[in-house]
Amino acid sequence: MPDLNAVVAEIAEEMRQRTDRGEVATYIPELAGVDAGQFGIAVIDADGAVTAGGDADVPFSIQSVSKVFTLTLALGKIGDRLWRHVGREPSGSAFNSIVQLEYEQGIPRNPFINAGAIAVTDQILAGHEPREALGEILRFMHFIADDPSITIDEKVAASERRTGFRNVALANYMKSFGVLQNPVDYTLGVYFHHCSIAMSCRQLAMAGRFLAWRGKNPTTGHSVVSPERARRINAIMLTCGHYDGSGEFAYRVGLPGKSGVGGGILAIAPGIASIAVWAPGLDSVGNSHLGRIALERLTKRMGWSIFGD
Amino acid sequence: MPDLNAVVAEIAEEMRQRTDRGEVATYIPELAGVDAGQFGIAVIDADGAVTAGGDADVPFSIQSVSKVFTLTLALGKIGDRLWRHVGREPSGSAFNSIVQLEYEQGIPRNPFINAGAIAVTDQILAGHEPREALGEILRFMHFIADDPSITIDEKVAASERRTGFRNVALANYMKSFGVLQNPVDYTLGVYFHHCSIAMSCRQLAMAGRFLAWRGKNPTTGHSVVSPERARRINAIMLTCGHYDGSGEFAYRVGLPGKSGVGGGILAIAPGIASIAVWAPGLDSVGNSHLGRIALERLTKRMGWSIFGD
Amino acid sequence: MPDLNAVVAEIAEEMRQRTDRGEVATYIPELAGVDAGQFGIAVIDADGAVTAGGDADVPFSIQSVSKVFTLTLALGKIGDRLWRHVGREPSGSAFNSIVQLEYEQGIPRNPFINAGAIAVTDQILAGHEPREALGEILRFMHFIADDPSITIDEKVAASERRTGFRNVALANYMKSFGVLQNPVDYTLGVYFHHCSIAMSCRQLAMAGRFLAWRGKNPTTGHSVVSPERARRINAIMLTCGHYDGSGEFAYRVGLPGKSGVGGGILAIAPGIASIAVWAPGLDSVGNSHLGRIALERLTKRMGWSIFGD
Amino acid sequence: MPDLNAVVAEIAEEMRQRTDRGEVATYIPELAGVDAGQFGIAVIDADGAVTAGGDADVPFSIQSVSKVFTLTLALGKIGDRLWRHVGREPSGSAFNSIVQLEYEQGIPRNPFINAGAIAVTDQILAGHEPREALGEILRFMHFIADDPSITIDEKVAASERRTGFRNVALANYMKSFGVLQNPVDYTLGVYFHHCSIAMSCRQLAMAGRFLAWRGKNPTTGHSVVSPERARRINAIMLTCGHYDGSGEFAYRVGLPGKSGVGGGILAIAPGIASIAVWAPGLDSVGNSHLGRIALERLTKRMGWSIFGD
Repeated sequence: MPDLNAVVAEIAEEMRQRTDRGEVATYIPELAGVDAGQFGIAVIDADGAVTAGGDADVPFSIQSVSKVFTLTLALGKIGDRLWRHVGREPSGSAFNSIVQLEYEQGIPRNPFINAGAIAVTDQILAGHEPREALGEILRFMHFIADDPSITIDEKVAASERRTGFRNVALANYMKSFGVLQNPVDYTLGVYFHHCSIAMSCRQLAMAGRFLAWRGKNPTTGHSVVSPERARRINAIMLTCGHYDGSGEFAYRVGLPGKSGVGGGILAIAPGIASIAVWAPGLDSVGNSHLGRIALERLTKRMGWSIFGD
Repeated sequence: MPDLNAVVAEIAEEMRQRTDRGEVATYIPELAGVDAGQFGIAVIDADGAVTAGGDADVPFSIQSVSKVFTLTLALGKIGDRLWRHVGREPSGSAFNSIVQLEYEQGIPRNPFINAGAIAVTDQILAGHEPREALGEILRFMHFIADDPSITIDEKVAASERRTGFRNVALANYMKSFGVLQNPVDYTLGVYFHHCSIAMSCRQLAMAGRFLAWRGKNPTTGHSVVSPERARRINAIMLTCGHYDGSGEFAYRVGLPGKSGVGGGILAIAPGIASIAVWAPGLDSVGNSHLGRIALERLTKRMGWSIFGD
Repeated sequence: MPDLNAVVAEIAEEMRQRTDRGEVATYIPELAGVDAGQFGIAVIDADGAVTAGGDADVPFSIQSVSKVFTLTLALGKIGDRLWRHVGREPSGSAFNSIVQLEYEQGIPRNPFINAGAIAVTDQILAGHEPREALGEILRFMHFIADDPSITIDEKVAASERRTGFRNVALANYMKSFGVLQNPVDYTLGVYFHHCSIAMSCRQLAMAGRFLAWRGKNPTTGHSVVSPERARRINAIMLTCGHYDGSGEFAYRVGLPGKSGVGGGILAIAPGIASIAVWAPGLDSVGNSHLGRIALERLTKRMGWSIFGD
Repeated sequence: MPDLNAVVAEIAEEMRQRTDRGEVATYIPELAGVDAGQFGIAVIDADGAVTAGGDADVPFSIQSVSKVFTLTLALGKIGDRLWRHVGREPSGSAFNSIVQLEYEQGIPRNPFINAGAIAVTDQILAGHEPREALGEILRFMHFIADDPSITIDEKVAASERRTGFRNVALANYMKSFGVLQNPVDYTLGVYFHHCSIAMSCRQLAMAGRFLAWRGKNPTTGHSVVSPERARRINAIMLTCGHYDGSGEFAYRVGLPGKSGVGGGILAIAPGIASIAVWAPGLDSVGNSHLGRIALERLTKRMGWSIFGD
């Protein structure tokens, strides 16, 4: 097997030099203003050793990557009853499509499209105050990343709320079918905030470790979910983690992963590594352009694809 | 690790006894008349050792499982140019949906829905006579399964052709967008015939070995595709192999797989095993009901999920 | 020609006796509680003579019939620029469908589906306070009906707002495309209120007179719109006035008309009569069941179809 | 009222001079080769007086205008049972859309989109030989136009059949739902042929007279349909006669009409006139560009809109 340090360094250098960087999300000023020239990568192995490259310690808005963690938290709270409110099939459409909701009676296809993540957030909220639910989500992030310094970027959250008409539409549409149980404003408040969590690649890779090692953080020994649940979350990441580019990501990278419009991707090599990459520029379906390429390089060089070495 | 022989025997016994057997496909008499009480399983390891259970040697109509082999063959013939004619994203809809074709200018979403497999078949045909193309497909099956006894069930093929109005519609629709290049009748003739190949679980698991072992049959040493291509075909099987139940299959079974309405499923545990199951009764989205359950049992007991042990 | 008085009396009597009355709308208590046994009809001729039958003087919630009047008002304010925000083609789908909005970039198909009427209301609002816009709409109703007693049922408006998640979704969805220009809450506030105007058949038929007589109330002589605009509004009523039952209404009744879920229908026989019917029970596509039948009887007996006598 | 002769002459002259002529259909050479500079108009009144202008005697391919006549013929043969096989609502989509068929179980929305007209043709065929059905259609055309010289352009029919993959798809798709009863090739053979009938404006306006005068040709006295059926066919023309431009046609022209991709339009002013226009260039939704404008001029000048004078 090639040397991971060398591979990561090479990848970081290639990504630093590439001029095809995709397009930074522009719908809120906080994302539009991010320097597209940045790239970070962090790979953590079973022993907790971190191999990092580029801007691995620069915090960014994790956005939809948070959906992995809220899914995990919601499954922990209500178990498989969650699947009454959200499916687990690929959507075959854009992250914010509303068409499918009409054809399927307000039940979102999976927890990783916006509508699905809103439905998951609604189950976490479960009658509590938004502030309490947010506190719970943040404590969960601290626990799984073993890092109490992780916070929400309130400016991002405020911008999301101010401009998130499409998400307001999705939420109200589900509410009209009775899929959401809390006041729409409450659910969306929590949703916009957890999407606004800021983390570095290092922190994000740390937070994802339980998915790589049978539901447990192998360093702290903290158990987050059962091995079966970890496998199943990975499966959903593989089939649904990159919106309408999920097939492409599986085809090229070959790892379960979840992307966010902030340019971050969390990817899991089960039993081998938890990986986070970040490059703010997006491709045409809304996934980090260089992030995906970096992961493709990494899995190919290291032979980490789950589909064969 | 538990003993594979014991696990397979237990699974075969459980499946023999279960009364929930799904519904046998009824659209042609040859499938409608199949005894729903049957169940077969065959698992082949790297050394070529076969662990079989139930009706593992009864031939059945492989139907859409053939799409894996025609995809492999087409990639071998024209390489990545194939992707000009078919995508590789999950469809989010039924195996025979035509809606997506209208929205995406006649390009099918992936090679494992009917429209996509017809487009792939059209590329194999490539100006030749249907008879020649069929001969090539059959020789390819003989080669990868190392078994020249595999044949097409002509009665099934004739029935498919007589009743396949939906597929005729899909093919003509693609033709209207210029996606198909041969006469529609030719392409469909080949398509209906390769769907009518009859194989037993043992033969099917044999044929799938190149996907488990880096593109090569580890016994004969025959190279079918490159390791990268084998991984990529597995990736498409994982995301798209079970129509609108692909997410569910990934979630429960955790292996790349491809199902057919004849009740067969080919599943691949990369580096570990090539597996075929068969139970004629289907679930609501058209995949083998007991076949899926059997695979779920197998991967759980053996720890073979690609998403973690 | 048969005697109108006799025909109206016969129709009112038949409708009183019929036991197939459709289903009263149940989404808000104010509509759910309406007695389905009621039926009213009022026909006004060029001279202002009113032929009434049944419960012609009982006020009901005009709901979507108000969309005719807000369309007229908006065209009066901004003219054909209105058509930048809304189309004028039949939708081929339900009154509250959101699917079409996604495919057509947030531009509703016509002013008589909910999304379209919300877009029209947004143009009336045009930066003013909701209270002012509502005042303007109400004054317009008083003017065209020559009746200052027409009011809004505030209880209905409050219920609409409390339960109108689907409309909130539609409005936010359009807002996300930039189709709406005012704060969504403002626009919806005005929309929910004008849908809650209460009128009797007699008042409604009075309000519709300008559409039957070249844009003018033939009694007061007040000009509301140009003759061409009156014709065009009638044309939109004919093609789009009954949601996904517009074709059926044209086929059976043969007059431009607009229905509301309160059970009212305004129908126009150009040059001959302005007609209002009311029966609270709805058919499967949301139009008044007996209202449509009554109009079918009327036009057939009187030879008033615009499609030939 | 203005002088019809003068109005028609003015319109013909304006249309001759206009340089915006739309785009001639190019999918078959026989249509692609038609000179876009041509324009014809013929207006026939109750007495049978013809006011013609431009190329009113040049035969053109009536294409989808034939759908009015096959609908009439099918209703004459099986009456309202026809509506089991086709609806009568506007489609809200393109003339050859297949999406709606999937959502509505193979039942086309109305007889004037391609799928609907194919379903109507299937009912005319009704077990007979294609040749017989075609003979019947042609005799019907001779009867209603009182002109035995009307024929089918066999070259057009052959081209339609050779290139009509989309229609083959629609027909097979309906067949898969059991909506078509004859062999698909038979039904399509008849369909392609009746679309290939060649007529001049003068002949077409003659053929439409029964729709303007209560189901009867006022000159010959021949009764074609009942007055009610004539009204109803007019209603369907108004709501569905121009594909996804039906609302626009109603809004601008205000008459029931049916267009064809050959550039012809038949329009009916009930009780007043039967009108045919022809200009080969089409607008973006497939209707004659100058044909529509000419009709708009005519109805405005003559006050013939059914929506008010």
